[in-house]
Amino acid sequence: MRNDMLGKRIALIGAGNVAHHVAQALLNNGLNLCQIYSRSIESAIDLSRKTGITYTTNIHALYPDCDIYLFAISDDAIAQLWPQLRCKEEAVFVHTSGSVSMNVFSGCGHECGVLYPLQTFTKKRELDFREIPLLVEGSSEATLNDIKQLAELLSNHVVAIDSEKRRILHLAAVLVNNFTNHLYELAGELLQSSNLDAKLLRPLIYETAHKVMSLSPREAQTGPAKRGDKQVLNMHRSLLQNDPELLRLYNYFSDSILNSFEEQEEPNPKKGLQPGEMLTLW
Amino acid sequence: MRNDMLGKRIALIGAGNVAHHVAQALLNNGLNLCQIYSRSIESAIDLSRKTGITYTTNIHALYPDCDIYLFAISDDAIAQLWPQLRCKEEAVFVHTSGSVSMNVFSGCGHECGVLYPLQTFTKKRELDFREIPLLVEGSSEATLNDIKQLAELLSNHVVAIDSEKRRILHLAAVLVNNFTNHLYELAGELLQSSNLDAKLLRPLIYETAHKVMSLSPREAQTGPAKRGDKQVLNMHRSLLQNDPELLRLYNYFSDSILNSFEEQEEPNPKKGLQPGEMLTLW
Repeated sequence: MRNDMLGKRIALIGAGNVAHHVAQALLNNGLNLCQIYSRSIESAIDLSRKTGITYTTNIHALYPDCDIYLFAISDDAIAQLWPQLRCKEEAVFVHTSGSVSMNVFSGCGHECGVLYPLQTFTKKRELDFREIPLLVEGSSEATLNDIKQLAELLSNHVVAIDSEKRRILHLAAVLVNNFTNHLYELAGELLQSSNLDAKLLRPLIYETAHKVMSLSPREAQTGPAKRGDKQVLNMHRSLLQNDPELLRLYNYFSDSILNSFEEQEEPNPKKGLQPGEMLTLW
Repeated sequence: MRNDMLGKRIALIGAGNVAHHVAQALLNNGLNLCQIYSRSIESAIDLSRKTGITYTTNIHALYPDCDIYLFAISDDAIAQLWPQLRCKEEAVFVHTSGSVSMNVFSGCGHECGVLYPLQTFTKKRELDFREIPLLVEGSSEATLNDIKQLAELLSNHVVAIDSEKRRILHLAAVLVNNFTNHLYELAGELLQSSNLDAKLLRPLIYETAHKVMSLSPREAQTGPAKRGDKQVLNMHRSLLQNDPELLRLYNYFSDSILNSFEEQEEPNPKKGLQPGEMLTLW
């Protein structure tokens, strides 16, 4: 089965952050990436130089005999580009977007599917692609199996889900990535406005993320809102009195955390001392 | 100078998360931790067993001849406890709180100060204390120097700041720790409500934090709000139509990110191709 996929000719459409990492992953795993398309000549040249794979900026010049056309481009561009492709009938169209339904390929007359890597990609950061969850979908069982097979060559974490669930995952990803990163920025601005070095927060940011690799966020939570410490909450609010925007955010989160711990605080059977448990109470 | 501090007798008041890590750091660095106080017998016994240091749950039984009394307890408890201490006149009172002013010790008749470790502590997670920023303050230059000296034995990142700045730092810490962690929880709940495994988000959470160890949050930002992708933003909003609370949060962050990138988007001199820059464009 593996050999099947290793023999398939793959064209990569896109040369941005996602395409960059996908291209490297394909090549690192012996897959037959044979051409790269990008509308941006700089990006195309760059990815071509890094991978040694030929490129084109003319969609009509893409090899028509590839087995898989992998669309790693912006959401809008998928629907615009595929109708321009000239390729053999058996070719499979696959996109990598979290928020675009597989139906974007409706009417293309090809088998199609999705291979969505749940990660934030930046060209200059190296990633272990094997650790990235790949969410896959296919227009038929056979195609789903093919895409799964491809995905399993790239990552140890392949899960088949439909377009509806992928949207939810993408939304959750926006929360833990884009919104979290924005909190980092807001906190950094707060420090800079007091002539404090934003880098002081790095060990805390690092540990906050590392904690939830082994604990649930609920177990990991600390701080004044969790404790219901009104004195500190009010002190923070008074510090933010001249920043109504940030105050609104502060109140939202504090109320949400307060409510979550008030409502759901149940009698914890581990809280009482169990015989012989003295040293492993937490 | 180091030897001065190494000879000093230190009493630790508290046996919670912070005290637990501070005790280990003191001992790991050869400091003379001689007694632990906690009002909770379980916590006192536990920390005593882990450190081999004697404990008491009676504040009046604390050794009166210590040089430093280190208050690693809840904010409220500091002001309640110090008036009950019986100790020699030269003893220095130091607390570890981010949100409590050094003035909490006003009227104590002792030199005093603060040693605030900017980190989130959980007993069962090991931390490299040398990497934790320690923010120090002292009631006189001599005391500040003593506390600095103590802090520098424990960490490579010691910075002297006043109580006002420490409050700002503590507020920023709430943003990047408590609020970020709450985003993790909200995202996890979203997945669970669709029967998706919240652990799928772990590699993304990890990478989001790791990115800002080398990039600024601004450089690290990605996603629909940054791109001004209204189609995805609206799609997410419609997914949240039955969750007005989360929708409010979604709109807050999306608007804040949109505004931040609209307002501050300046012509980037690096965006055009510079001679010889082809491969280092990003």
